[in-house]
Amino acid sequence: MQALTVENGQVNFVKTYPEPTPANDEVLIAIEMAGICSTDLEIIKGYMGFNGVLGHEFVGKVIRGPENLMEKRVVASINCICGKCDMCLSGLSNHCRQRTVVGIEGRDGAFAEFLAVPARNIHVLPDSIGSDEAVFIEPLAAAMQIVKQVPIESRQKVIVVGDGRLGLLTVQVMAAHGNKTNVALLGKHEEKLTFCEKRGIRTILLDDMIKKPEWDVVVDCSGCVEGFNTACQLVRPRGQLVMKSTWVADKPVDLSALVINEVSLIGSRCGPFPDAINALAAEEIVVNGMITSRFKLSEGLVALDKAKDHNQIKVVLENK
Amino acid sequence: MQALTVENGQVNFVKTYPEPTPANDEVLIAIEMAGICSTDLEIIKGYMGFNGVLGHEFVGKVIRGPENLMEKRVVASINCICGKCDMCLSGLSNHCRQRTVVGIEGRDGAFAEFLAVPARNIHVLPDSIGSDEAVFIEPLAAAMQIVKQVPIESRQKVIVVGDGRLGLLTVQVMAAHGNKTNVALLGKHEEKLTFCEKRGIRTILLDDMIKKPEWDVVVDCSGCVEGFNTACQLVRPRGQLVMKSTWVADKPVDLSALVINEVSLIGSRCGPFPDAINALAAEEIVVNGMITSRFKLSEGLVALDKAKDHNQIKVVLENK
Repeated sequence: MQALTVENGQVNFVKTYPEPTPANDEVLIAIEMAGICSTDLEIIKGYMGFNGVLGHEFVGKVIRGPENLMEKRVVASINCICGKCDMCLSGLSNHCRQRTVVGIEGRDGAFAEFLAVPARNIHVLPDSIGSDEAVFIEPLAAAMQIVKQVPIESRQKVIVVGDGRLGLLTVQVMAAHGNKTNVALLGKHEEKLTFCEKRGIRTILLDDMIKKPEWDVVVDCSGCVEGFNTACQLVRPRGQLVMKSTWVADKPVDLSALVINEVSLIGSRCGPFPDAINALAAEEIVVNGMITSRFKLSEGLVALDKAKDHNQIKVVLENK
Repeated sequence: MQALTVENGQVNFVKTYPEPTPANDEVLIAIEMAGICSTDLEIIKGYMGFNGVLGHEFVGKVIRGPENLMEKRVVASINCICGKCDMCLSGLSNHCRQRTVVGIEGRDGAFAEFLAVPARNIHVLPDSIGSDEAVFIEPLAAAMQIVKQVPIESRQKVIVVGDGRLGLLTVQVMAAHGNKTNVALLGKHEEKLTFCEKRGIRTILLDDMIKKPEWDVVVDCSGCVEGFNTACQLVRPRGQLVMKSTWVADKPVDLSALVINEVSLIGSRCGPFPDAINALAAEEIVVNGMITSRFKLSEGLVALDKAKDHNQIKVVLENK
């Protein structure tokens, strides 16, 4: 099959990658569409030391598996768990000590024609959710994880730092769960801020931002040290700073404001797929217009380059 | 009066520093003893941009002020507040927007013969607490702030990273509030670890530590990037990392483990003086033997050098 792989930091489009053979507890999915995420770009740079097929945001159709799942349009949560370790047994299976993660750690991903995942990970889509929406379910679930960890009250002032793919989803989740007039997005790309404003969400251009420690909840989706440092400057004393993106500091990091202001920083990763599916079905979150470029899998190398362009929102790969 | 000052990063012993004139709401304290803290050493290196008399850990006697406080042996909390800002009015007066902090920010400190502080900050000492103990009340209060922010349950595994002054106090607080058999101190100075073991607290030498993410609560008292990075590696998924000390990273910082493991990092600063006084009075915390060097105020420059020696625990300045 065709697949987009990374081997020791080198990305390749491979025409003859072996098709996955699903294990007894797995299903085989024919991938219809897959989204490129910043994590994919980090993996190419060496993050997680991953080798194999990239991609963890996808929608497809089950072509082998239990009868009740056959031919269903599905998405799948990406953490594949053992069910036996201390984390699994204590209800924290997303943190399974033995886990593999689709396209990120120890398991091939979705930038391919076919993908095998455990049947327990599958979520069947309602007809009302099209594939252009479904491809956002994984990152939207990650955004919705925030409100699981930090319940947002309507009186709270919330700001999302970073107008990238994840920031645009996250600010919508914050606006849906908090008081929309108390929520803002901080970014530096006017087009993306406009995207948000059209949805009635307040935006602030970085150059216009007065950095004061007065926000109750700050969510850092910037994916860079500068953005994180800005986020630290915005949280009020005893406020909460949610960290959604990973990076290794190549510039000085000053965490002293977190100590002086007794801030709680909350690391946040993958989230609940059912919540994301429900939010899309109920049109609480609108992802319409967020796909800015579409490529065939065979054009994957060009697509990955395109995804680095900060004027793009979501770049997808399609199997047609 | 004699005083130890810092001006633009230069420490000076001054013989003729002007005596403080207490305001209407202030008392004048004759300083008996003051402790040198790592924050003092950071301030000398430029932290907080502070100029003035150093020192914020002290015990002394009120020599001017309201009748009921006169001649009392006292300590004083170090945050001097406005009582009117949003933080003060919301019960977070330690985070007062207009605050000055004794010997740290906008207000002279205790490495002097006399000190003026607001009467509301004063805590009168019971006779049972000697000055050798009382000088630890400020840092002990800071250590006790942790259990205000992160209640410790007896089933939780707790590790304190760093066997410096604050680490030795903090691990005692953790042992007193948690289950002593589940609490450990990680350090690299065998003498200090021995100090702890004599109090029945488990210690681990850094070279012997197997770094696994299995501790429920990790408290970083290391005061350096390496210690913080170690702390990040020790917290279990969804665990809590308390950050007690400040530093600016001069080496790479990798916060990705906090995101991947969804760790909560909790910044923690000053704490409740009454709790510290009670803990000393009840002998829950034993600071006996922690003063390792004593100097006269006039020997302050030598004392500050001595405090940099990692074999020292607490170095104090005495006015006799």
